Order: sequence, then C-alpha cells, then structure tokens
Amino acid sequence: MNKIKQKNIKPFPNSEKIYVQGSRDDIQVPMRKITLTDTIGELAEKNSPVYVYDTSGVYTDPNVAINLRQGLSDIRTTWIDERGDSELLAAPSSTFANARMDDAKLDTLRFEHRRRPKRAKSGKNLSQMHYAKRGIITPEMEYIAIRENCKWQDYKDQIGQHKGESFGANIPAIITPEFIRSEVACGRAVIPANINHPEIEPMIIGRNFMVKINGNIGNSALGSSIEEEVDKMIWGIRWGADTIMDLSTGKNIHETREWIIRNSPVPIGTVPIYQALEKVSGIAQDLTWDVFRDTLIEQAEQGVDYFTIHAGVRLKYVPLTVDRVTGIVSRGGSIMAKWCLAHHTESFIYTHFEEICEIMSAYNATFSLGDGLRPGCIADANDRAQFSELETLGELTKIAWQHEVQTFIEGPGHVPMQMIKENMDKQLTECGEAPFYTLGPLTTDIAPAYDHITSAIGAAQIGWYGCAMLCYVTPKEHLGLPNQDDVKAGIIAYKIAAHAADLAKGHPGAQIRDNALSKARFEFRWEDQFNLGLDPDTARKYHDETLPKQAAKSAHFCSMCGPRFCSMKITQEIKTMDKTQIKKIKTIQDEMDKKSVQFLANDSEIYIKNSAS
Amino acid sequence: MNKIKQKNIKPFPNSEKIYVQGSRDDIQVPMRKITLTDTIGELAEKNSPVYVYDTSGVYTDPNVAINLRQGLSDIRTTWIDERGDSELLAAPSSTFANARMDDAKLDTLRFEHRRRPKRAKSGKNLSQMHYAKRGIITPEMEYIAIRENCKWQDYKDQIGQHKGESFGANIPAIITPEFIRSEVACGRAVIPANINHPEIEPMIIGRNFMVKINGNIGNSALGSSIEEEVDKMIWGIRWGADTIMDLSTGKNIHETREWIIRNSPVPIGTVPIYQALEKVSGIAQDLTWDVFRDTLIEQAEQGVDYFTIHAGVRLKYVPLTVDRVTGIVSRGGSIMAKWCLAHHTESFIYTHFEEICEIMSAYNATFSLGDGLRPGCIADANDRAQFSELETLGELTKIAWQHEVQTFIEGPGHVPMQMIKENMDKQLTECGEAPFYTLGPLTTDIAPAYDHITSAIGAAQIGWYGCAMLCYVTPKEHLGLPNQDDVKAGIIAYKIAAHAADLAKGHPGAQIRDNALSKARFEFRWEDQFNLGLDPDTARKYHDETLPKQAAKSAHFCSMCGPRFCSMKITQEIKTMDKTQIKKIKTIQDEMDKKSVQFLANDSEIYIKNSAS
Repeated sequence: MNKIKQKNIKPFPNSEKIYVQGSRDDIQVPMRKITLTDTIGELAEKNSPVYVYDTSGVYTDPNVAINLRQGLSDIRTTWIDERGDSELLAAPSSTFANARMDDAKLDTLRFEHRRRPKRAKSGKNLSQMHYAKRGIITPEMEYIAIRENCKWQDYKDQIGQHKGESFGANIPAIITPEFIRSEVACGRAVIPANINHPEIEPMIIGRNFMVKINGNIGNSALGSSIEEEVDKMIWGIRWGADTIMDLSTGKNIHETREWIIRNSPVPIGTVPIYQALEKVSGIAQDLTWDVFRDTLIEQAEQGVDYFTIHAGVRLKYVPLTVDRVTGIVSRGGSIMAKWCLAHHTESFIYTHFEEICEIMSAYNATFSLGDGLRPGCIADANDRAQFSELETLGELTKIAWQHEVQTFIEGPGHVPMQMIKENMDKQLTECGEAPFYTLGPLTTDIAPAYDHITSAIGAAQIGWYGCAMLCYVTPKEHLGLPNQDDVKAGIIAYKIAAHAADLAKGHPGAQIRDNALSKARFEFRWEDQFNLGLDPDTARKYHDETLPKQAAKSAHFCSMCGPRFCSMKITQEIKTMDKTQIKKIKTIQDEMDKKSVQFLANDSEIYIKNSAS
Repeated sequence: MNKIKQKNIKPFPNSEKIYVQGSRDDIQVPMRKITLTDTIGELAEKNSPVYVYDTSGVYTDPNVAINLRQGLSDIRTTWIDERGDSELLAAPSSTFANARMDDAKLDTLRFEHRRRPKRAKSGKNLSQMHYAKRGIITPEMEYIAIRENCKWQDYKDQIGQHKGESFGANIPAIITPEFIRSEVACGRAVIPANINHPEIEPMIIGRNFMVKINGNIGNSALGSSIEEEVDKMIWGIRWGADTIMDLSTGKNIHETREWIIRNSPVPIGTVPIYQALEKVSGIAQDLTWDVFRDTLIEQAEQGVDYFTIHAGVRLKYVPLTVDRVTGIVSRGGSIMAKWCLAHHTESFIYTHFEEICEIMSAYNATFSLGDGLRPGCIADANDRAQFSELETLGELTKIAWQHEVQTFIEGPGHVPMQMIKENMDKQLTECGEAPFYTLGPLTTDIAPAYDHITSAIGAAQIGWYGCAMLCYVTPKEHLGLPNQDDVKAGIIAYKIAAHAADLAKGHPGAQIRDNALSKARFEFRWEDQFNLGLDPDTARKYHDETLPKQAAKSAHFCSMCGPRFCSMKITQEIKTMDKTQIKKIKTIQDEMDKKSVQFLANDSEIYIKNSAS
C-alpha cells in the first residue's frame, strides 16, 4: 500500500472543512464551507458562504495526517463503550477469519492495525433501532441531525425555495435528534453503523432525509489490487458517495475489505454470498448455511455496516424467471436460484432468516434485503418474479423489525419511466415504509457505455417518489470493471439525481446551493460558479479550454456566446438602468393595455393597434 | 473546406443503409438496418435485424460519394416544382444577401454551388399546413409516415412492449400518410421543410410521433471556422440529431450558414435576431424592422427551415424579470428586451408578426416561437415573466395558424422536477397542442460541466409528458463553446432522453431495440450488444479496456464480475436445465404452499415450517 495520492486529499478550492459541535465535545460534525467572493459594481454586496454535506472524511482536512496503514481514528468508540452492552472479544468468532490470520502467506497483504472485534453481550441488541424504540437518543442520532440540517437554518430568511411535491414524505423544517430517533424507531430510516466500524461519520438513510447515493467498488477475478480498491473508495467519497459497497469477488477479499473498512469514514456494505461462494470454490450447490453464517460473522466482526441478503429468492419464484428476456441478473440472486434448484429445496437464507437477525443485532449490522429477482432489462420490468420477491421482502422486513434489526430494501434495475412509480408505491406498501435503495433504474437498454445517464434519469425520478438511497451505475455497467474515472462519472451523475430529487421533494434548504451558484453565474463570478459546482475541476477546465487567462475569470462573457451575445451581460445592463425607466414602462404599458381592451372585438388585429411604432 | 473526415462517414458496424420505397420512385426513405448474429448453443436461433431511425443522411451510405463543395442532392425539387406554386427568382430578394454576393473578399469563403432561391408565386402559401388543410397528402407526408413506422410492423407479433402512459397523446399503431396530414392540418405537428432546402430528408415534430432532438452548433466571436461548424453538423446527425440549429454569432455567418444548409439532410433552424444584431454592429437599440425583415428573407432564401422568433418578449413583461436571480438568459430575449426598453415601445417583432407570417408562408419556413423569458435557474422557474410570455406565444400561435403557417413553441430552461409538468400542461393549453420544443430542462444548477445530465433528466420527463422535440445541452453549457466531443456527448444524452420518453409514452415499436439489445446481452453476443447501442464505438472500447482479445467477444462474462460471478451465465445454466426439473419444483412448491396455509396462524414462524431443509 503506497502513500495516499495527492489527488485524493487535495482540498476543494475556496473550501474549508468545518466541524459543528453537538451537545458534547466528541460530537464534531463535518461540513464543507465554500467561501464566496463579493459581488462588485453597482449591485455590490457580500455573499454568504455555502455549507455542503461532506462525505469525504478527514481526507479533505489538511489538519489531519493520513496514514492508510494506520487507518482512521475511531470517533465512535466512546459512544459504543458508554452503552455498556458490548464486549471486546479475544479473537474473531469466525473460523475463516482465524484461518486467514494464521496464514503467513498473507502477512504482506494484511492490514496491520486491526481492531479486536466487539460483539453484543449475551442477550443484548445493539441496533440503533433497539435504542430508538426505547426512547434513547444516541450520539449517532444527534450527530446525524446536525449533519442533515447542514446549517441551512442560517439561510432561512435569505433565499427562497420552490414548494416540493413529496408524495407523502414528511420532511420537517428542522431535523431534530428526536426526529431521527422516531424515524429509526419505526423503521422508516436506518443508521448503518456496525460497532466494529467506529471510524464512520454517522449518516442516515430514509425517505424523510436527503437522498443518499452508494458507490460500488471491488475487484473481480480479472483485475484490480487492494490498493486500487482503497483508492477508489477514497475517490468515491471525495465526490460524494454516502456509502460504499465492496463487491469484491476476486482474490483476497477478506484482506481487501479490512483495508477498506479501516480507512472508510462512510458505511461499508457487502454481499456476503459472494465470499461464501469463493469459499466453496465457486460451486453454488456446495454452499451451506454454516459457510454463510461464518461469513456473516467474519464480515460483521470486521465492521461491515450493511449486508445485502438475498433472502427473498424463494424456490417457488425461480420458475417465474424462465421466460424472461434476461433471466436473473443479480449475481446473488442467480447463485441462490441455482442452489435452490440443485437441492430442490427452499433457500437456506430464507429458512435461517431469524438466526441472521440475531447475528445482525449483535453488531448493529443493517439488512439490505437484496432484490435477487430484479429485472435485467426493460422487457422484464415489474413482472411477477420481481414483485413476488418484493412481497417476500415485505414479510421479512416485519420479521427483522420484530428482532429490532434495521432494514432497508433493494430495488431495480431496469424500468421504463412510466413503470417506476409503481415500484416505489408497492415497496412502501409491502415493506411498511422501510427505506428503498435502488440500482438506477435504467430507463432504456439501448445505450451501453452511457448507463450512468440512462439510470440517472430513473434514479432522479424514484428519488423524488421516495427512494432513500440510489446505487450508482457507472459508464462501464454491463461492459467491464469501472476504473477511477468511471467511479467519478457514476458518483457525479448520481449526486445530480439525488439533488434533483431533494429539490423536487422540497427538502428544506436544498435550493441554497442552486441559488448561490445561479447568482454567481449571473454576476460573472466565475470562480464561485466553479467552486459551488459538484466538480470544480472539470468546470474550470472546460471554461479554460477556450479562455485560459486569469483575466477571463472576471470577464462578463464566456466563449459560448462571446461578449456581444451574452444575455446575462445584457440583462445586467437592463438591471442597472435607471429604476424610473422601469416605472415609466409600466405606465406606458398600462395605457396600452387600456387601449387593447377597446379593440378586443377586433381579434387578431389587437396587437397591431397595441403597437406604439 | 477540406475533404470529409473519415470518422464522419464511417458506416456503423454490421449496419447497412437501406431505403424503403414509397408510392413513387422518388420516395426513398432511409433507415439503418443492424444485422445480428445467430444465437448459438441449445437455444440456437436466427435473430431478426433491427431497423433504426436514421438521421445521418447519405454520409453513412458508402454508395454515395460525398463532396462538401458540391452539397447534397436535391431530393425534394421535383415535389416542390410539381406543386406549381413557387417560382425561381433571378437573384436573392434580400439586400444583404446581394451585398455579400458582390463582395469579392468573400470569394474564398463562399459556397460555390449555391441554388437560385425560390419563393411562392404571388398569393400562394407554400406551407405544409396549407396543403394539409386542403386535404393534400404531399410526398413529404408519405415519406414521413414510412420513416416514423421504421418497419416496426415486421415485429408486431414477435416482441412484447409495455403499455405506455401518454398523458393524452394519441399515437396510432401504424402511422399513415393521412394521419400525418391530419396532424399537420390541425397544427399538432410540423414538417420543417423550406422549399429552398430541397436536400432535406423530411421529418416531423409533434407529440404523437417519436420524440426528436436538436443539436446546436455555430461559431462565436471567440472561435471556430466554417469547416469546424460543417463538421459538427455532420457529426451531430451521425449520432442522431433530428434537426440542427446554427446559432453562429461570430464572423461570416451568412457564408457559414450556406455551407451548412447545402450539406444538411436535416432541417436547419436559426435565430435571425443574432445576425440582425451583427448587421447593426451589436447595438440592440439600432435594430429595426427593416433590418430584421431583410434578415428573415435572406435566411429563408438560403433555406433555413425554422426560425426562432422571440415575438413574445413584450415591453410590459420586461419589468417582471428585474427581481429574478438570473434575469433574462435567452440571448434573443435579452436583445429584444433591451430594444424595447431603449425605445419605450412594443417589440417590433410582436407588432410586425403578421408580416412575418406572410414571409414564412412564402417559403414554408416554420415558426419556433422563442421563449425569450425562460428561466435561467431553478429559482426563476415557472414565474410570472415566463408564463406571461407563454400566454402571448399562445395568442401568436393562433395568428400564425390563421395564416396557415406551421408553428412550434420553445420552452425552458431550468425547472425542478416537480414543476416540469406544469410547463407542459400550460403549453398544451395555451398553444392549442402546437408542438413544444424545450431546452432540457435542467433539473438543478449545481453541476456545471455536467448539464447534459442535469438536463437529460428533465428532458426525458417533459418528452414523456408530451414535449415533441428536445434541444440538447452539452457538457460545456454555461462554460464555453462546445467542440466535437461535447456535441456527441450532448446528442447521446438526448437520444437517451428521447428514447426513454418514447418507451414511457408507449410509442409503438419503441421497445424493439431495447429487447434486441437485452437478448444479445443475455446471450453474450457482445458484438450485437455493441452494435445495437447508440454508440457502438465507445461500448466496444470500454469492454476492450480489460478484455481486448477477439476471443472475449464470445466469452460468457466480462471483467465487471468475471466468469464465476456472471449472473447471466448462471441463469443460462438454469435455463438449459431439464424442463422436468422446473416442473418438479412447481409440484414441490405447490405442496409447500398447501402446508403454509395450515400454519398461517403462526405468523412469522410460517416460513420456517415451509422449509424443506
């Protein structure tokens, strides 16, 4: 593992990492403060800074020295220990984890500063839902309340925002810790925060909060190293990934995951069946509950925050997929389908679901109930296989909730626009408003190499309708393993979709950044325009392709239209015209309008009579 | 002007330009036929070719020699002349056009093979609407009917398609020439086809047809040559632009336009006020009706198919924009606003609207009534200024229709998702279902350098709601003049939006390409998957980054998941399992289901009892 790459930690321009303190010293909530320049000229004024939600962790804090071999600080350890319901284990509980530890061949790969795992004391439930149901507001909840508000109250009286259409979401003007608690208690939101991942900066997923996005990373048998994957994780959160899923299916996935978790300030999700399959040499039929169970414990003790569990792929649903155009496209779904068929029996994940709940509650691992039968193309959207599984996921959600285990639900996939809302509505009904987490959906199949766009269209819509987290799709989808550029392209497309959804839902304060950027644009504050954008580097680069000189950064035009045709420039001239002139127009026009009335009978001739020329 | 670039004319892989003949020999409608490979293995079968709408003209026909200095063939001249209502002029009617002809300094720039302009004989109206209202089905209409069907009837029984939600659009299963006529007659669709642009392959814009997209090109005072702009046009139609707007505001825009029109098989639109402003040295106040009128005639006689005319920017609306965050962002709108304010009088475009109608009808030029007061940011969306102008555009539409002039309406701009539908609904109401043509809309302002994505989200939605044509936005929007890469990025994003809208509306046959591509994907026919996509080159490139060898093109996996985790591979294995096995499962499951019923009272325990393990 080499040193951190400079491009991963370079602070954003004119930005500063700030920390908002909560009720106790150790609640320090990060935000990015973007400082703006003053408006000059006749309309001169100061422009308030803009605070944006910041997922990038201490990597963008120049005051923190980054050491990937050491991992991040454990900001949550005190909170976890104070609760007194967990215990430090002498060694991992998983057979596999211990075997990996004992394997000297792995020494060079292994992350050195592993933490000793923790687990619930006997009979204890460590889930945030469990605390919430008992009326306890955890430090995580308070942290999240501060984070979600993003200081937007400071702007309340300054800048307007359009009314949203929230389709039944119920977003309060101010997010309080008590609101967080109540949403987690009823299952409408989750806080993925494994006790063995004390490094995370807590965040929440739920329809009444900002729409979140997930970035997938992970090696495959055909490529990528641990270093590349850690790099992708840090690169992904830099651009705004709220969680990262490590979908490694290649070599050394136990060790890869350790490196990722220890260096990740965002929740990490996995699909444990992938590693379980590796353990049985890729033969789906050879999977057993014991192998799967050991994998869950192995990963939970490393600190995985949420698990995709394809518990809804039931034997009886498999035949529903045979006439599909693309069959089963979920890797986990197809593995389980194959297992069910080979054994002619019900899925062992389904039959052991309550035991899984018990494991989850011992670490505050969160369920991401996988949609193993999601459609893999437009043709297969919303079919019986997909919706049957969703109904089962609804049943399982209620069982998970009986165990007070946090749960969210995965969704499609490939769905044409007119059929997206049905997915959201059905999920809300079947799963009692448990958060929905969808992959896209892709709204057409005809654009391989552009599926970040085909799916951003669907993602924005389903986010608006109530989806809580959007799993990104990169331009490489269906074609190959994404590299760093693809990760960034996917993240930016999804930040756009999520933010467009926040605006549409009417999330309080969501429009502050749009308004500030638009004002900067109108006032030709080019640097502010770049810096307020999701990707200041590329915006600046595009501008500078034709106008590279520093002087152009204050020019009242760009190369798109040139100086003579810049409408914003012309409008500024209008704006600064004498106010009395505007008044005069209103008077002239009132008179013209009066005249118009006299000619109303003349139909289309009116407007000619109306003319003063 | 150099020779045509190879990348502009390279035929698409496994594709063939075909021509479907109409009722007469000279109706030859181009389509692109994509030939597919056979499915091999147990599910072996032939795969039908897929025909796609083809905007690329003869540039992708290897049987046609391209000579940019010569221009394209005039496929419509016979049709125009047969109607006997136009006459060939000895010289251009426009003062400016004649002055340019006489200017020896321009000899090196000038397109040599200019056509002598045509104009309506005295008292004649050449608009397709005029013919349509008289029950005449023109060759253009028949051509378009064939084109819009795109041979989809050949697939009717083969492949399913989801039911659309068309929000009141009324799309017939088969497009007939008579349907085209009736849609044009009532103004619900337009055929932009200036008699002086006989080179075009006719196309239609209307809510009951495939959603179209426009690509903008054009130089600015800061850059680009004639050659670059012709190149961008050909590049744009290669990727799917249905029309091209030449928005040049820089040098030699008369000559640039001539080159573009003579080489364009798609309708060309312009914003005449840009050139008019150049003629008065950029001083908006100096604009006059005479200069504007001469510009309209100059351009109409060159063959411009549609004109953006900002006739709705009325004096009284200008004060409504002063409190906006970004004022007036339409270049044409701001020019006219400045003129109105400077003269304290009504816009000369508004007051001379009926004279403009007469000019339009003499050439079958089509109105694109400009939205000079469209919002330039989320904050300004759907405001009084915008909607006042739209109401005026509604009045003007009815006047244009009295003159039997084809008309469509331009729309925003920047609009958050929850406010998009109001735009569409209001436009349909105010403008009597005249086609709507929107720029995006952009659904957020926070992503400069990615506005092709922020706007594709809005474009897909408004296309679904009924918008007939989507004006593309490139990644350079707000930042600089787009280059060829940007043009392609914008076009592809908008082809996606338009096609997603077609699927959502339930346009007959729209799903054929999606289905064929999905089937190819499932069957690991990699080449077919690339070739059926909007951009085969990039799809292939992405795949080959990790698996460059030819053998990988028939491999049952890609580098994304590798061989062991490919769900499609696993599902294929399931599919080819013994059918009796599937039957057996159904029997087992039926028994299990019966058992389940007995345990229904046991609540969450059911699923355990249900297990056969």
